[in-house]
Amino acid sequence: MPSFAPVVWRNRRLFILDQTLLPHLRQEIELTSAEAVWDAIRRLQVRGAPAIGVCAAFGVIVGIRGQRPGTAEAFRKDAQEVCRYLATSRPTAVNLFYALDRMQACLNRASDSDMEALYALLEKEAQNIFDEDVRMCRAIGQHGAALIHDGMGILTHCNAGGLATSGFGTALAPLYIAAEEGMRFRVYADETRPLLQGARLTAWELTEEKMDVTLLCDNMAPSLMAAGKVDLVIVGADRIAANGDTANKIGTYGVALSAKYHSIPFYVAAPVSTFDQKTPQGSAIPIEERDADEVRLHGGTLLAPEGVKVYNPAFDVTPASLISGFITDRGIVRPPYPEGIQGLFISQP
Amino acid sequence: MPSFAPVVWRNRRLFILDQTLLPHLRQEIELTSAEAVWDAIRRLQVRGAPAIGVCAAFGVIVGIRGQRPGTAEAFRKDAQEVCRYLATSRPTAVNLFYALDRMQACLNRASDSDMEALYALLEKEAQNIFDEDVRMCRAIGQHGAALIHDGMGILTHCNAGGLATSGFGTALAPLYIAAEEGMRFRVYADETRPLLQGARLTAWELTEEKMDVTLLCDNMAPSLMAAGKVDLVIVGADRIAANGDTANKIGTYGVALSAKYHSIPFYVAAPVSTFDQKTPQGSAIPIEERDADEVRLHGGTLLAPEGVKVYNPAFDVTPASLISGFITDRGIVRPPYPEGIQGLFISQP
Repeated sequence: MPSFAPVVWRNRRLFILDQTLLPHLRQEIELTSAEAVWDAIRRLQVRGAPAIGVCAAFGVIVGIRGQRPGTAEAFRKDAQEVCRYLATSRPTAVNLFYALDRMQACLNRASDSDMEALYALLEKEAQNIFDEDVRMCRAIGQHGAALIHDGMGILTHCNAGGLATSGFGTALAPLYIAAEEGMRFRVYADETRPLLQGARLTAWELTEEKMDVTLLCDNMAPSLMAAGKVDLVIVGADRIAANGDTANKIGTYGVALSAKYHSIPFYVAAPVSTFDQKTPQGSAIPIEERDADEVRLHGGTLLAPEGVKVYNPAFDVTPASLISGFITDRGIVRPPYPEGIQGLFISQP
Repeated sequence: MPSFAPVVWRNRRLFILDQTLLPHLRQEIELTSAEAVWDAIRRLQVRGAPAIGVCAAFGVIVGIRGQRPGTAEAFRKDAQEVCRYLATSRPTAVNLFYALDRMQACLNRASDSDMEALYALLEKEAQNIFDEDVRMCRAIGQHGAALIHDGMGILTHCNAGGLATSGFGTALAPLYIAAEEGMRFRVYADETRPLLQGARLTAWELTEEKMDVTLLCDNMAPSLMAAGKVDLVIVGADRIAANGDTANKIGTYGVALSAKYHSIPFYVAAPVSTFDQKTPQGSAIPIEERDADEVRLHGGTLLAPEGVKVYNPAFDVTPASLISGFITDRGIVRPPYPEGIQGLFISQP
């Protein structure tokens, strides 16, 4: 496990590593109310779809406790309200709904009327979500580590690492496992404009974990590839369509195009839960446009003329044809795609 | 002519528009010594290959004046030293060497021993370089404007505009001329990390000149192209090898790769003086690696872990095979390349 954790449940109290302060300050803060949990998710103090899910799950317990319910009935009512409320913090993150649904379902199944027993049940379910996340990361890491060889240069984009999950991350998990196995390699981290998750988070966590990491601006990756420094690309995913088209952080598509041109393997690492069989292809994935000031401002300083128009999509779609394979918790899927991806689901017990 | 000028020679004094202060402040500063000229070029207060050449040419006069040579012999020796010194300010831009060579050659041809006459000769040669730059920009603009049609979306990278030359720029000149001719089109400006010349300079000068400009992060260009918003790409060049391989601001290569994939015409706009017939191909062009803090810091604030390794080349090389054509002051050159490019020189009187 990494030496840091985005979400920590300790002595029945919820702590997060405040990611808005990285890389300047490594500061844990306690979330003591549903409002504090909501705010932390909204303000990206905790981010990464799996980490958000885990934080919200423990957040349900914190939220109910704040209501001090006196009866089992009140407890159930409070739980429902807290779940509904937390679900509004980031309405697009699928793991958030998934985690909150599980917390509610667990309560619906329980016949206990003892308050302590109900708390214990919810705590166990939140812990299950956390543990499954850790196992998912490790499984992705183990499958992906097979792609890594001594001396390689590996490029990644954005942060799909330990800061985004409860464990080793998705895109970075193969690197952590390969390092555990004694492999030595160089990592290149795209800074990932506009929010600089690569510079602030990926470079930080890989430095913490004593990896050999080099930071670059997003527009330098093609030149790095042309120089023969990159042997493998691994990125995460926000949603993978049935045909393999993949939505991920803006800039991923350009990395994939450049990798293709330089004949460098380009892999997407994601748990099976990121494959959305209801979305036929990439063009059906809605792309969120974010605030112009994310591009125009940095730390309150204007980088560009005030009021200049801005194009600022949060994600782009990489067509399946540019993807060498998907590293999932159930193994690596390679082309041809619709078939390989369907196999992930058919092979389920 | 644009409403601003990067280099101004006024009453035998050298002024530049300090581009490191844009877009916040439009401030002219005077350069009163060879050291100040060297520093202004090095620190990118003046930038863009043609503007650097013009600044260095006038800088030779400023530099000699600082030495206060007493004899024509001392004058010639000082001139040589100043030229040698200024040539070390930046390694990639060929215009710098070209301008300094011309200043020296002009002095070598002169038989005068009168100090004032020598100053006047140099001033005339520097003014010639300036005037030729203005004419060159307009010629590039006129040839390139033929590529622009009403309603187009045109993407550019970095700043090869009026701020980079004495006139309308290179890559932006066709836009200015097309706008003069009444054409209406959208311009997309890559912000151009790490120094944000697109955000700070291109967005600024196009806004000043009332163009329809939209700013984007470099990593968003492929997604913009996939969305069908880009019909034409025009970029500048720092050096063009004999075979057509082109060194330009870091990130240009990625734009070219993406344009190729989306079948969008990708043009390089540059004067004939940027074609370096002594450099056979791109791999022979020296690429300046710049300070890591350009990537790690913004406005004194760390964007990344302190001391993290950084890859920060100032330029990349776009292979000729990705270039639809060169918009030069002598017309547009199209593939096949070595031939077309050689034609530029053969047709010279």
